[in-house]
Amino acid sequence: MGGDSFGTLFRITTWGESHGEALGVVIDGCPPRIDLSNEDIQKELNQRRPGKGKGSSPRKERDRVEILSGVFEGMTTGTPISLIIRNEDVDSSSYEEWKDVFRPGHADFTYQAKYGIRDYRGGGRASARETVGRVAAGAVAKKILEKEKVEVIAYTVEIGGVRTEKIDYEEIGRNVLLCPDRDAAIAMEKKIEEVKLQGDSLGGIVEILVRGCPPGLGEPVFDKLEADLAKAVMSIGAVRGVEVGAGFGIARMLGSQCNDPIGPKGFEKNDAGGILGGISNGADILLRVAVKPIPSISLDQKTVDQAMQPVSLRIKGRHDVSAIPRINPVCEAMVAIVLVDHLLRQRTLTG
Amino acid sequence: MGGDSFGTLFRITTWGESHGEALGVVIDGCPPRIDLSNEDIQKELNQRRPGKGKGSSPRKERDRVEILSGVFEGMTTGTPISLIIRNEDVDSSSYEEWKDVFRPGHADFTYQAKYGIRDYRGGGRASARETVGRVAAGAVAKKILEKEKVEVIAYTVEIGGVRTEKIDYEEIGRNVLLCPDRDAAIAMEKKIEEVKLQGDSLGGIVEILVRGCPPGLGEPVFDKLEADLAKAVMSIGAVRGVEVGAGFGIARMLGSQCNDPIGPKGFEKNDAGGILGGISNGADILLRVAVKPIPSISLDQKTVDQAMQPVSLRIKGRHDVSAIPRINPVCEAMVAIVLVDHLLRQRTLTG
Amino acid sequence: MGGDSFGTLFRITTWGESHGEALGVVIDGCPPRIDLSNEDIQKELNQRRPGKGKGSSPRKERDRVEILSGVFEGMTTGTPISLIIRNEDVDSSSYEEWKDVFRPGHADFTYQAKYGIRDYRGGGRASARETVGRVAAGAVAKKILEKEKVEVIAYTVEIGGVRTEKIDYEEIGRNVLLCPDRDAAIAMEKKIEEVKLQGDSLGGIVEILVRGCPPGLGEPVFDKLEADLAKAVMSIGAVRGVEVGAGFGIARMLGSQCNDPIGPKGFEKNDAGGILGGISNGADILLRVAVKPIPSISLDQKTVDQAMQPVSLRIKGRHDVSAIPRINPVCEAMVAIVLVDHLLRQRTLTG
Amino acid sequence: MGGDSFGTLFRITTWGESHGEALGVVIDGCPPRIDLSNEDIQKELNQRRPGKGKGSSPRKERDRVEILSGVFEGMTTGTPISLIIRNEDVDSSSYEEWKDVFRPGHADFTYQAKYGIRDYRGGGRASARETVGRVAAGAVAKKILEKEKVEVIAYTVEIGGVRTEKIDYEEIGRNVLLCPDRDAAIAMEKKIEEVKLQGDSLGGIVEILVRGCPPGLGEPVFDKLEADLAKAVMSIGAVRGVEVGAGFGIARMLGSQCNDPIGPKGFEKNDAGGILGGISNGADILLRVAVKPIPSISLDQKTVDQAMQPVSLRIKGRHDVSAIPRINPVCEAMVAIVLVDHLLRQRTLTG
Repeated sequence: MGGDSFGTLFRITTWGESHGEALGVVIDGCPPRIDLSNEDIQKELNQRRPGKGKGSSPRKERDRVEILSGVFEGMTTGTPISLIIRNEDVDSSSYEEWKDVFRPGHADFTYQAKYGIRDYRGGGRASARETVGRVAAGAVAKKILEKEKVEVIAYTVEIGGVRTEKIDYEEIGRNVLLCPDRDAAIAMEKKIEEVKLQGDSLGGIVEILVRGCPPGLGEPVFDKLEADLAKAVMSIGAVRGVEVGAGFGIARMLGSQCNDPIGPKGFEKNDAGGILGGISNGADILLRVAVKPIPSISLDQKTVDQAMQPVSLRIKGRHDVSAIPRINPVCEAMVAIVLVDHLLRQRTLTG
Repeated sequence: MGGDSFGTLFRITTWGESHGEALGVVIDGCPPRIDLSNEDIQKELNQRRPGKGKGSSPRKERDRVEILSGVFEGMTTGTPISLIIRNEDVDSSSYEEWKDVFRPGHADFTYQAKYGIRDYRGGGRASARETVGRVAAGAVAKKILEKEKVEVIAYTVEIGGVRTEKIDYEEIGRNVLLCPDRDAAIAMEKKIEEVKLQGDSLGGIVEILVRGCPPGLGEPVFDKLEADLAKAVMSIGAVRGVEVGAGFGIARMLGSQCNDPIGPKGFEKNDAGGILGGISNGADILLRVAVKPIPSISLDQKTVDQAMQPVSLRIKGRHDVSAIPRINPVCEAMVAIVLVDHLLRQRTLTG
Repeated sequence: MGGDSFGTLFRITTWGESHGEALGVVIDGCPPRIDLSNEDIQKELNQRRPGKGKGSSPRKERDRVEILSGVFEGMTTGTPISLIIRNEDVDSSSYEEWKDVFRPGHADFTYQAKYGIRDYRGGGRASARETVGRVAAGAVAKKILEKEKVEVIAYTVEIGGVRTEKIDYEEIGRNVLLCPDRDAAIAMEKKIEEVKLQGDSLGGIVEILVRGCPPGLGEPVFDKLEADLAKAVMSIGAVRGVEVGAGFGIARMLGSQCNDPIGPKGFEKNDAGGILGGISNGADILLRVAVKPIPSISLDQKTVDQAMQPVSLRIKGRHDVSAIPRINPVCEAMVAIVLVDHLLRQRTLTG
Repeated sequence: MGGDSFGTLFRITTWGESHGEALGVVIDGCPPRIDLSNEDIQKELNQRRPGKGKGSSPRKERDRVEILSGVFEGMTTGTPISLIIRNEDVDSSSYEEWKDVFRPGHADFTYQAKYGIRDYRGGGRASARETVGRVAAGAVAKKILEKEKVEVIAYTVEIGGVRTEKIDYEEIGRNVLLCPDRDAAIAMEKKIEEVKLQGDSLGGIVEILVRGCPPGLGEPVFDKLEADLAKAVMSIGAVRGVEVGAGFGIARMLGSQCNDPIGPKGFEKNDAGGILGGISNGADILLRVAVKPIPSISLDQKTVDQAMQPVSLRIKGRHDVSAIPRINPVCEAMVAIVLVDHLLRQRTLTG
């Protein structure tokens, strides 16, 4: 129970280190007779690959997925689906230099404290590269949601203080930042370039929308839909906050303002973000997550080595400026997995 | 798997409805030889009882806990601890009138959609009364943390738009709102009185501080400490957002601003909120949760009945104006439970 | 995770000690809209009560069950069902004398080794009385199976070396030993009387038959139906062996003998005991369990005290001579719980 | 939750089909800083490879294991260990012929009933080949047990009705049948040759001994040590019965015979098989499992096709005559995994 599994009925287990042989995921509990091809998964993996936009990392991984089990003649069989992605462009030499140093904002210190040993190459298991397994599993979850006409979309609403002024869903796929506001996207790109020159990095906010979710998903006490969603997205390395519907804004509302009136056709507004009492109400589900700046920056930083002696650290090489937009498909994947899990749970209630 | 259990090694299962015979919790996995008395639990339950402050509910429950198992001669034995709290002041008559109506902001609609049946009396299982089991279990968790010198404190930092200007821990216990800023507490009380006269309700923000947490707690991928904490607090009915450390504010920081430098004595600031890479780093853990206004208000509201026909609803009786401060001990309980769970998980790593 | 929960989707958590205030069970994951009354549960509890047959214990417990939650207007609501049975006829005085002694065949020694503390009164949690929670939960499982036309029957096929020669299902309810062979039942009763006079105790074998189980239940690798059934019955204190279908006899068969031929109407014999590859095949499921003699006997026994000093022990008071037939409803309960669990799991596969 | 995971703290997830690309296992929860090399695992895998003895299968797989994650510089890191074994000698052509036929004694019928689809090639997931993942994981468990001086040995005590007359542990490694009685081993080999000529197959009994297990392992109610062990071994395809200590023989004992007296140095005999009240007592743990004959035989068998029309089936090719001795390392692996799991659980009890 090292915490590398997620979900109850649709249960994924990921494994792999940044500079190990490979990374992967095993999906247990996927229903049988779902169409599934390499392309279905590859398409999603390509979304999280580096190399897009001006703030991107130079590591070139093709992220070719291989389906090793659980699929027969193009369909899932109900047995576990094992997906593997080999690491190809691994160069650990640059990490040797810092193997005894705890990089600020990274998990080096805490892994050492927890395990008394760590694979320091590229952050080991704590690398963002760990998310390939999530995205691969999310692709399978999305195939199941597709059959149920449920859609999950993650888009960028803020980077480096630049916020979207409007939400145009058509625009999302048209810019590399996956931003639903064209003007904001341009301003964000500009901000990213600026900060890149400074050797610094940027945080932002991603919004996740679920359309078509039927009412009834979620368990009412501890496994509330928003609780499982919160855990799902907070388990992504760079996420430091999550809110549903009106979120933190609700703290300043009156009850008469935040209660969503119900009419014969359903909820007449959606400050609840599609979830009431932990259960989906049929309206759109809306989440927002706060994403921290990439901790690897090309500026001098104060830290210590394993002997707790002071060290001045300057991380070489190029890194992403922001975890956005590569984190967006990871958010989609995690949300899709939670939804499928609760969809299967809901099926157990009716005989 | 109805989602009524929480935790992996220190695992609690709660049960009970607002107007049922009783509510309770079973704790499985509590280590043996922990001192535990009725008073230890009663003390915590008294914190969440109604009747404090000007915005409180009139239902008078003594919330007397009974320890039914797992404790022998004042010590835990390692076997499951069953705690029960009888409902005493139950009057369901006022609910009969609205048994076919879905109250806005409540879980009536979604329970019906999920189960096709619901105990409508006092909200049934969706009532805030469900939290007595959490608080009782949290009291046991706190006893374990006490031995480890770990302390969890939840305090009010915002109600109805009134924010604290300073944090004076000594002040928290001195006002009924559990607010660390005396002046803010007074302004909050005033705001509550105002809104109460209008028949409306108020949201706010609660901050939770953990002192003394050792480094190493949390699992690095899905069961990150902040992920489990996020789920824990988001599973509390009124919570709609959660953030750790700098939280949503981090979205506007540069990497050079949010990375916490490390010195020979540890982290030199704490924007990470005590958690790096999902693992505690030895600094204080800091969470904030957004609490929505109580949905039961004494104003006309637009809704529908079970046949989806329009109804105008006016909820009678008095209710709390804000879930704060009664929600504070619930937050403490959930955080304490997560910490104990990860403390036990960490023990498995060393032979 | 003290091991007091069982099942995955239909999950029960039992609690309580032999001489504590009460015992009980919480059932999480019971589907909604199942008819459930106190009588449904009481009926099953009465089956496991002492006082039947010549080898029975003198402790007089009415075992009155109280439904504390999860049922509304006679139907389950989908929320956890809490069942409690108060201890009434508790006299711990006779145990004081032996509180520092490890009774042979009992769990005294191992509880002490595991926890460093134990509730020695009446065996504490290790008492057969622990099974009331199982039987109460099993009664709920049986209500679900009833809707699906699945029936579970446990009957006695051997006590003290006396075996049944025939299986007459009608006979089972007609004798206190729940034996399907009238003549064998008489011989068993005689054997019990004999051994009772000697102050000794007897083991035996119980067979469990499941009729009407649909094909498809069971997961094919670790959660094979027979694996979960084996765990279920081996978790009952007195059980020391379990076999399915031809069981240990299969070790002496040829493949051509033990393979069950399949015809247009299904399996033409049933040495597989209704399970192939871990999945039910539609035929009757057949299990047998070996039950050890009651370890409390009225004869001198060699043992040690907590200081590991030799002691001669003679246990006073009367005890059951055999765990059979009181163990039979416990076997039925555990099997019913496994079947319901897998029934719910199977529902997740079809959209 | 397709049942492809086993264990709670030391948790393994296996995947892979007989004729798929590969098979493997992910181990989550392995403690850090355990020495682990390819050879440690390969050694165990070689034990279960075909090609030993006269009754063996002709499929030639080298079963080369690759460690893909979780190990750094020869030591476990605490992160998940992914092990993969590629299928090399796959020829599915012989299965095409029978893809619509349900082989007696196989899982063809039940997989089809459960999933509505099945990978018929070589039995798919229901193949004995599935056990490579178990054995690989078991090798890791054994490394942990080694540090604790716990040893697990599975040996053959009966094949085709030939039983061992004595137990000479030295002899086990000296014959291919892993039989502790040289004369019995010779008689067993003879029996196997005979039956092979007839085109039939044989069952038998394997005994598993655990030496050096400390007292205190096992949870006292549902997760009793013998219950988890029973599930572990019953989850192996060919196993149809399991007993601990005196097992089924206990049914014919008196209480005064089966209770193990305790002296100053511990238990003076061991009919309990090392487990009392679900918890290890420090004595040797002893299990026996009944193994059914290999269902693939070269004789005409009566069965049906997917349309439930009668078919006479004669399975071509050579197959093992008995699952023994290849099943022995699988038994060892499963027992080792259970022990490690409970060892880790026990660590949580002491602060």
